[in-house]
Amino acid sequence: MKPVYFEDESLKLIDQTKLPTEFIIKSYTDYREIAKAIVDMIVRGAPAIGVTAGYGMYFGAREFQSLSKAEFLEKMKEVAALLAATRPTAVNLFWAIDRMQGVIKKNDDLSPLEITALLKVEAHAICAEDIQMCRDMGAFGAELIHQGDTILTHCNAGALATADYGTALGVIRAAFEQGKNISVYADETRPFLQGARLTAYELHADGIPVTLITDNMAGWMMKQGKIDGVVVGADRIASNGDVANKIGTYSVSVLAKAHGIPMYVAAPTSTIDFSMMSGDEIIIEERNCREISHIGGVQVAPDGVNMENPAFDVTPHQNVTAIITEKGVVYPPYDINIKKLKQ
Amino acid sequence: MKPVYFEDESLKLIDQTKLPTEFIIKSYTDYREIAKAIVDMIVRGAPAIGVTAGYGMYFGAREFQSLSKAEFLEKMKEVAALLAATRPTAVNLFWAIDRMQGVIKKNDDLSPLEITALLKVEAHAICAEDIQMCRDMGAFGAELIHQGDTILTHCNAGALATADYGTALGVIRAAFEQGKNISVYADETRPFLQGARLTAYELHADGIPVTLITDNMAGWMMKQGKIDGVVVGADRIASNGDVANKIGTYSVSVLAKAHGIPMYVAAPTSTIDFSMMSGDEIIIEERNCREISHIGGVQVAPDGVNMENPAFDVTPHQNVTAIITEKGVVYPPYDINIKKLKQ
Repeated sequence: MKPVYFEDESLKLIDQTKLPTEFIIKSYTDYREIAKAIVDMIVRGAPAIGVTAGYGMYFGAREFQSLSKAEFLEKMKEVAALLAATRPTAVNLFWAIDRMQGVIKKNDDLSPLEITALLKVEAHAICAEDIQMCRDMGAFGAELIHQGDTILTHCNAGALATADYGTALGVIRAAFEQGKNISVYADETRPFLQGARLTAYELHADGIPVTLITDNMAGWMMKQGKIDGVVVGADRIASNGDVANKIGTYSVSVLAKAHGIPMYVAAPTSTIDFSMMSGDEIIIEERNCREISHIGGVQVAPDGVNMENPAFDVTPHQNVTAIITEKGVVYPPYDINIKKLKQ
Repeated sequence: MKPVYFEDESLKLIDQTKLPTEFIIKSYTDYREIAKAIVDMIVRGAPAIGVTAGYGMYFGAREFQSLSKAEFLEKMKEVAALLAATRPTAVNLFWAIDRMQGVIKKNDDLSPLEITALLKVEAHAICAEDIQMCRDMGAFGAELIHQGDTILTHCNAGALATADYGTALGVIRAAFEQGKNISVYADETRPFLQGARLTAYELHADGIPVTLITDNMAGWMMKQGKIDGVVVGADRIASNGDVANKIGTYSVSVLAKAHGIPMYVAAPTSTIDFSMMSGDEIIIEERNCREISHIGGVQVAPDGVNMENPAFDVTPHQNVTAIITEKGVVYPPYDINIKKLKQ
């Protein structure tokens, strides 16, 4: 299931706001529209946002490739700024934009037309590498999943959050493909319901046994011994192993620890922000409270009541059993072992 | 705010499935309709269900008061059985039915007409006592709430869950009425959203500062030091202090313990099931999974996906700081101190 792919000189996105009841593919050729699609969560999931932003940079270049070099460079700064302003927490977004800007800088002697051609190649590379990274993460992570395990996951770190295959769900897919008889509990993940709408959808479509629960049931399932491990994705990982991920991940990590259940984070190394010493520095996006007060247009909260809507939280590294990357599984002490991934 | 009251020889219920967008009062005179209202959660909350069932018994008696004594007694068994079959977890339901049946037994020498008159008095007494118990609980519990505290609550243990004033929210109301500058975080409480639809509604209506969050945000708020205490209600309390309450309460209790935050349970002694040694014996109601897959008629989960929907969970007494009753605040060791309430 590919939520973002390039075809006929346009970018195709599965409209994830319409799942699971409607499967609609939208087509984009304008970087402004692509930026809006990220803001509106047509596409979401840290790796998928990175891939989308890469193509956004290319589409910007294509639009401005006939301008003078100076004008082109100026415009590309605007394109990068617009794409970077879409969402604040997922580091892959900035990583992808930086990588595309690196192509522009490195090829200073080339014309806008030539640079644009290289940006297309780079956007394709980011997309292809993302899929390969998910496969590699899956292979490493599957070793941590045992025959008969029931795995809890939160939010959607699946194929729909990447270019394909998924990070956390990639690990689950790989274990399933190895013939391990596993099953999954999916937290519905309020307020945006990515677990209900996306994780349950893609696992069910792939024939992987999945049971949907509300977020507040996870602890009770653990108490009853129904959960053997937790695997989630990440939007940003600090140098010390602190993990920013979808709101509710922190609670899951505390519950897992209290029940002696391993808590795994699956994320490509592009998710690691080596510039941040700890999770305290990570900016948490506050989203519109209408996501809480209304569900599918139906009002569920009284008019005028105060709400908070942090989209992410930070799980301290002490609660993380291991981080699964495309380069291998990283264990504590994270401050030492994460640095090794930089090389 | 009275969700259940007697007026003009009929029982009035606020239709809590319609809140917070519509305020509708329904009128009942038939015990079968009253049983259905409990099943459909027009009225919900352990104490309110008890009060409603009391009136249900009276309405049954009124219908059959012209029959022979033998026929009347037979019919009243049917009425009791129908009301008792509505919901399995809240003990107040059975407590209220037993109390009404006690009136019938104790007055064996009276006619159906005379017994019916006494049942009306008893139903009124259950209702009036419920309000008084909430006030008493409020007075005891308010001592545990400090100036400036922010209290987390889960589900709705408010006026809407009782005959008036509330259990957990009664404690909050009492502290607020004492002039303590407090505020409340309300978990929305999926799947039925009692926190969003009812708790946020009644606190906002009373001018008590309330912030609505999704269930999975509670841990993150605790991590940030935003929560000073937790107060919840209960549907059944075992002799050892184990507490059955709305699904998600167990997770909240683990999170509170991990953050060193006191966890209080406010419930009348009618909630205590002295016949149960521990929470392991409590039957947990499994409700229709459509509560998870659909919200206000909007489908949020894919067709055909497996779901679980336990309506309650059991919080072990080790996670409960104190139980606030109408007779006073009970501290551990619960197995000893709960017994004292029986006298």
